[in-house]
Amino acid sequence: MNIEVIAIGDELLRGLIVNANGAFISRALCLQGLKVARHTTLPDHFDKLKEGLQEALQRATCVIATGGLGPTCDDCTRKIAAELFHSPFHFDKRVAEDLKRRYGQDLITLQDQATVPSHAEVILNTVGTAPGLIFHSAGKTLILLPGPPPEMQPMFTKDILPFLKRHFPQEHKEKIEQIHLCLLNENLIDPLLRSLKERYPQIDFGIYPGYGTVTLSLSAQDEKALQSAKKEITAAFPHKIFSSPQGTIEEALHLWFLENKKTLACAESCTGGMLAEKIVSNAGASEYFLGSFVTYADALKQSVLHVPESILKAHGAVSEEVVRAMLDGVFQISGADFAIAVSGIAGPAGGSTGKPVGTVFAAIGQRGHPPDVVRFQLTGSRQTIVLITTFRLLAALWRKVVHKIPCFQG
Amino acid sequence: MNIEVIAIGDELLRGLIVNANGAFISRALCLQGLKVARHTTLPDHFDKLKEGLQEALQRATCVIATGGLGPTCDDCTRKIAAELFHSPFHFDKRVAEDLKRRYGQDLITLQDQATVPSHAEVILNTVGTAPGLIFHSAGKTLILLPGPPPEMQPMFTKDILPFLKRHFPQEHKEKIEQIHLCLLNENLIDPLLRSLKERYPQIDFGIYPGYGTVTLSLSAQDEKALQSAKKEITAAFPHKIFSSPQGTIEEALHLWFLENKKTLACAESCTGGMLAEKIVSNAGASEYFLGSFVTYADALKQSVLHVPESILKAHGAVSEEVVRAMLDGVFQISGADFAIAVSGIAGPAGGSTGKPVGTVFAAIGQRGHPPDVVRFQLTGSRQTIVLITTFRLLAALWRKVVHKIPCFQG
Repeated sequence: MNIEVIAIGDELLRGLIVNANGAFISRALCLQGLKVARHTTLPDHFDKLKEGLQEALQRATCVIATGGLGPTCDDCTRKIAAELFHSPFHFDKRVAEDLKRRYGQDLITLQDQATVPSHAEVILNTVGTAPGLIFHSAGKTLILLPGPPPEMQPMFTKDILPFLKRHFPQEHKEKIEQIHLCLLNENLIDPLLRSLKERYPQIDFGIYPGYGTVTLSLSAQDEKALQSAKKEITAAFPHKIFSSPQGTIEEALHLWFLENKKTLACAESCTGGMLAEKIVSNAGASEYFLGSFVTYADALKQSVLHVPESILKAHGAVSEEVVRAMLDGVFQISGADFAIAVSGIAGPAGGSTGKPVGTVFAAIGQRGHPPDVVRFQLTGSRQTIVLITTFRLLAALWRKVVHKIPCFQG
Repeated sequence: MNIEVIAIGDELLRGLIVNANGAFISRALCLQGLKVARHTTLPDHFDKLKEGLQEALQRATCVIATGGLGPTCDDCTRKIAAELFHSPFHFDKRVAEDLKRRYGQDLITLQDQATVPSHAEVILNTVGTAPGLIFHSAGKTLILLPGPPPEMQPMFTKDILPFLKRHFPQEHKEKIEQIHLCLLNENLIDPLLRSLKERYPQIDFGIYPGYGTVTLSLSAQDEKALQSAKKEITAAFPHKIFSSPQGTIEEALHLWFLENKKTLACAESCTGGMLAEKIVSNAGASEYFLGSFVTYADALKQSVLHVPESILKAHGAVSEEVVRAMLDGVFQISGADFAIAVSGIAGPAGGSTGKPVGTVFAAIGQRGHPPDVVRFQLTGSRQTIVLITTFRLLAALWRKVVHKIPCFQG
């Protein structure tokens, strides 16, 4: 069983959009024990697309392609797939009825979208207009799905995964263990990983750095070796390993707050709402998350969070004194059990000699207790600084609540 | 000139992270008039990676690969590239000195990272430890860059783009026009695009839907035809075309607020800070953006935004009455010239018969004027609902301020 995932569209090759479908599909397959051998992104150009699809079908048993199915005139994937699988087209009444029901009689692309290759299994699209198609013959499978993630994702989960499980039962049960770490960098894990790799040659090790977190992936058929290696890693980083099905620190934090029935609020400046956004990306965050005060303007830091004007004037908005006052303010207004306050210079402008771009001050605390306050210095683009700040603060709070360790200790 | 972009790493093929490097590099090249023919993602496996790199070098003049350069034990890209370009290794003092200066004498990976292929041009990494490498011989170029975007991006912009401009001067000057539209869907543009394609066969048309926006891309060597086609599209959608160098609605809005010196604030519930985050993703947003009140809990809607408890009780937090009161509150506290208030059910839980998951109420207004209020119904995952809501509201505000059109009109 050899799977390749293809994304189709000039928009991807021109960098207009990021290919998120490859990761979504790969992750879903990986969780089923199915490995993806390659991702390819191909243009909307008929001959080049046909060539790329043919190559992939030669290498792989199953090719899953997204995009190029829309009713617009630059989409030619269906035609190519029908050629490759020698299929005529026919008008599919079931697709037509479904489109009429959802879009009305006047949908101009109805005729086009309901005309499908006769040799393909048709998957109805519950969100958009283009149906999915499964070609399956002579030991090769080609699955075509619409490109927009809101259309592709439900189709993949509801129809394609069950199809794959039915047709490609897992052959050799390779076990995969993922270990998620925070608050450390790649260089710190390297010596241990080198040693483990020597002593466990039967295990495949992977190390995947994120913004402020690192995921280790161990895969092997030898379950005993896998657990033994995992134990060594766990012992080496007892307070830096977090547990999260999705592998995100915001989910680990989410699970703790749900379980411990404590509440959380934020006071943000440079992160501009990203702390809140990461927290509420978890369904059910409303159980504990009260909200965030994105006080971008100093006037709002004063009027909403009650940061004294004198402190802002004396120390500047990016200072230890201001994040302490912001934290006091957010506790006072929200009554939350825990809170994060942050103010920094995300750049590219706004830096000074004493506080260059990338200077961040943060305060994290529990109501009624003295907060942990820190200054750190980051480098990179505006977006990088905001991302690293966000995930570092979420990780620091996670370690504080789970392991009772001051937020900004090594 | 034929460029392919390769991303290396099992983390990508397992869906642990999304490949953002492909889009970044492609976009930067596209803006220089250089087209990318293909993206490929390859595993950390020595033989498979070597095979994939060899294939790409056969098809393309220039291959740009990211990832697999780190000091960790699963990275084998350098070795493979040295084999393909018949290069020995040597210890590079310049790299070693730079690493010592930035990380100190004790960096355990120093010896490893400073040992580089002798036939490659070395690019110092200003953020992380792995240097970039350029192999350039016999009409083929292979560029190796580190995988983490904060390391790759500055290296690409500062060193690789100038290298490419020097070695691959643009041959045929193909002109590209991008037209960004909001508040309409793909089906509405299709008839016009079909007609244009018939009448302008010399132009390549592409249509790229995003969350709430659509980008049309027209490319041709015939500048006159290009401008004529662009004029037709502009005439067909006079109030839906926005102007933004990055092609984002938040940037179009940003430019208007900067130019018109008006201020903006938000009151968010279901979007959980994403409205604010998109706004402040533009450098300089502090000139006009005051902040956002992410009042996730009803108690904060009352205490901070002064939403009357009676309204919350009578109509529920997701209602027209509540978003009107939230808007009043954000105007009152912030004194902003314009504001957005939103409350909805992002799901997957929390829906009811009358207000299913995906129900969103929003109010957008100018201080002292009656607001535009709307209810809309979305489908999709929690994340999709939040994303579409965010971009739709930004677009509605953009059209209101730029074209003086009520926010939620057709």
